[in-house]
Amino acid sequence: MHMDDMILLSIDDHVIEPPDMYKNHVPAKWLDSVPKVVRNEAGVDEWVFQGEKTSTPFGMAATVGWHREEWGFNPGAFTELRPGCFEVHQRVRDMNANGVLASMCFPTMAGFNARTFSEALDKDLSLIMLQAYNDWHIDEWCGAYPGRFIPLGIVPMWDVELAVKEIRRIAAKGCRSISFLEAPHAQGWPSFLSGHWDPMLQALVDENMVLSLHIGGAWDIVKLAPEVPIDHMIVIPSQLTMLTAQDLLFGPTLRRFPELKVALSEGGIGWIPFYLDRVDRHFQNQSWIHNDFGGKLPSEVFREHFLACYITDPAGLRLREQIGIETIAWECDYPHTDTTWPESPEHAWNELQQAGCRDDEIHQITWENASRFFGWDPFSHTPREQATVGALRGLAADVDVTRMSREEWRKRNEAAGIGVF
Amino acid sequence: MHMDDMILLSIDDHVIEPPDMYKNHVPAKWLDSVPKVVRNEAGVDEWVFQGEKTSTPFGMAATVGWHREEWGFNPGAFTELRPGCFEVHQRVRDMNANGVLASMCFPTMAGFNARTFSEALDKDLSLIMLQAYNDWHIDEWCGAYPGRFIPLGIVPMWDVELAVKEIRRIAAKGCRSISFLEAPHAQGWPSFLSGHWDPMLQALVDENMVLSLHIGGAWDIVKLAPEVPIDHMIVIPSQLTMLTAQDLLFGPTLRRFPELKVALSEGGIGWIPFYLDRVDRHFQNQSWIHNDFGGKLPSEVFREHFLACYITDPAGLRLREQIGIETIAWECDYPHTDTTWPESPEHAWNELQQAGCRDDEIHQITWENASRFFGWDPFSHTPREQATVGALRGLAADVDVTRMSREEWRKRNEAAGIGVF
Repeated sequence: MHMDDMILLSIDDHVIEPPDMYKNHVPAKWLDSVPKVVRNEAGVDEWVFQGEKTSTPFGMAATVGWHREEWGFNPGAFTELRPGCFEVHQRVRDMNANGVLASMCFPTMAGFNARTFSEALDKDLSLIMLQAYNDWHIDEWCGAYPGRFIPLGIVPMWDVELAVKEIRRIAAKGCRSISFLEAPHAQGWPSFLSGHWDPMLQALVDENMVLSLHIGGAWDIVKLAPEVPIDHMIVIPSQLTMLTAQDLLFGPTLRRFPELKVALSEGGIGWIPFYLDRVDRHFQNQSWIHNDFGGKLPSEVFREHFLACYITDPAGLRLREQIGIETIAWECDYPHTDTTWPESPEHAWNELQQAGCRDDEIHQITWENASRFFGWDPFSHTPREQATVGALRGLAADVDVTRMSREEWRKRNEAAGIGVF
Repeated sequence: MHMDDMILLSIDDHVIEPPDMYKNHVPAKWLDSVPKVVRNEAGVDEWVFQGEKTSTPFGMAATVGWHREEWGFNPGAFTELRPGCFEVHQRVRDMNANGVLASMCFPTMAGFNARTFSEALDKDLSLIMLQAYNDWHIDEWCGAYPGRFIPLGIVPMWDVELAVKEIRRIAAKGCRSISFLEAPHAQGWPSFLSGHWDPMLQALVDENMVLSLHIGGAWDIVKLAPEVPIDHMIVIPSQLTMLTAQDLLFGPTLRRFPELKVALSEGGIGWIPFYLDRVDRHFQNQSWIHNDFGGKLPSEVFREHFLACYITDPAGLRLREQIGIETIAWECDYPHTDTTWPESPEHAWNELQQAGCRDDEIHQITWENASRFFGWDPFSHTPREQATVGALRGLAADVDVTRMSREEWRKRNEAAGIGVF
């Protein structure tokens, strides 16, 4: 096996929703009420919904294709972005250039779970726009290239029965997962332990869909010192995923829903051996607590429910047997600062080789585990021989992956009418 | 090398301070004002200082020697404890029975950093009693058996200049470390990043003493769901040590104090490879932040400053080279529920062998690293051939390590007048 023979499914990327995303997905009478992108006096594009600024469109820095020195969390305009951030044809070209067959894209304007819609006052309007988001994502973004995207929805978390209905609705459209919050209680919602979300979790089980919990969703769980540098914001989130696993494993949500599947998105894998050692030792040592894992160890229950994914994680890959190889998936994180685009195959391959992975383990990690977990067949639209890194890169010889400055992007995009809405 | 040839220094154990600890360490006129143990109507012993109940004496469950079914956080009376918890001659016999040459004992009644004295209103009185605590710990507890204990002090954190003075005072008495809070900001104190503690850190550097940060000291840093089970309280603390490392490494406290030494007590080691992968990748990838680690990687700076210790940690030991073998130390955690007493040598040896450790690595982990880091020579009072697991256990043939019920301990101790003050 060679690097070019790999098949790459990335279960964590991000879409920067384009300003015109709603136009095909709401009845005409609501067109004036859709979230809109407004460029402010500083030249920064901002989403506005129900009269409130909800966010800048670029989340945690959609810096792909920029010179490293210009990275940061400073917002900008659509015209400054690499077009693959928000334009699906360009996105698929960028995936080809990176040898990536398929991608699961998390929302940006909507928040990891629909913050934009949950916080707005008129919830009837919010529901319409949330459903329009899902329809755009599933039918337009993913639908433009069948076989290249794993659809990922959001739910109206302000009403769990509405969330159940939305899950059933998008499941019928082929959606495979929803994005939700790692630690809902940290943002003032009931916790996973409370039982409040049980109808939603049951609906996911019924529809064989995955609960995807992206890092950052537990950010509010820690009380940081006021002086912390920006490094904390980047380094810490993947270190908090363990807290989510702990809530679900001992909650005991996973024991109430033995078929629930949870993806820990961008959480990394290197923390898992330490955590599993800890919980197994805890379970055996602190037997006075009388935890009931159905005759299994906590680590076994963990492996039955979770899929963890990594961008780069040398230590985790070395301990893949302690984690459980079936529990590990790869991700690309396009277009954020931590992405390995456009050299993802080289990064992934070198790391897998340095960890001594066998070919069958590489296939498990780069596509088989994600395919099984999300119930999504990568070869239904793409014959296997056309799905490899080598085959996809062969389609993308004309894709320019050169880094440019924000200013260069702006000039080039404006000249081509890209990102001008 | 055989198991019996190991030399064990435990840098994390706990003393349950006896009620009469102050009698030799305060002037007569203060004897009425010392913290006192009062047995309440429920038969529970409680410390009372300045008219307030400060804590039960047993902290996180001094359950050593109890049947597992009776463990928990339910407080009790001194008479229910294995006497080695609070009586130094019995403690040394228990150390011998477990093959442990030397122990560093964290405070219980005083809190990991002197909470009992920090919270009391009359700070002049608090300072007298805090100094009496240190004198008792250094001169009476450790002093009773030279060469068997590494002295560990506490400081008056309500006044950093007083803390500096106390460090100088106890350094002159041979104290090697102070116990402090992992995340002072989580309890309303200034953070390590604030610069507030710099004079104290400088004093530690001047005196070649170690800052020991025990888990639990960052407990208040996380916002847990109200429904979390007791498991969270036991599983999570060692998972939060990373946050302390991050504060110090990027704070950038460690760069301000290039000679500062920090022990991460009971924090485990298995999280370190993941964390070091993360911070090195972060440093190299996010170069726009312009972090200055003096031409080194963050992982190198980490290894220059930290000593991490573990009770049981199979995953961490497998990745010892990624951690840095010089950064790893072993601990016993007597008398808490997680201790491996009285089979610590068997536990430690089996785990070290399963990880494939060479003999020289075993010596580094079980004593050499701790000896170097704390500047404490284990053979100054005990010839090396008498310091081994085998030699020490040979002295302890008469120590009964049988587990008994709380009620059995109570009857036995009361009959012998042990724990009756």
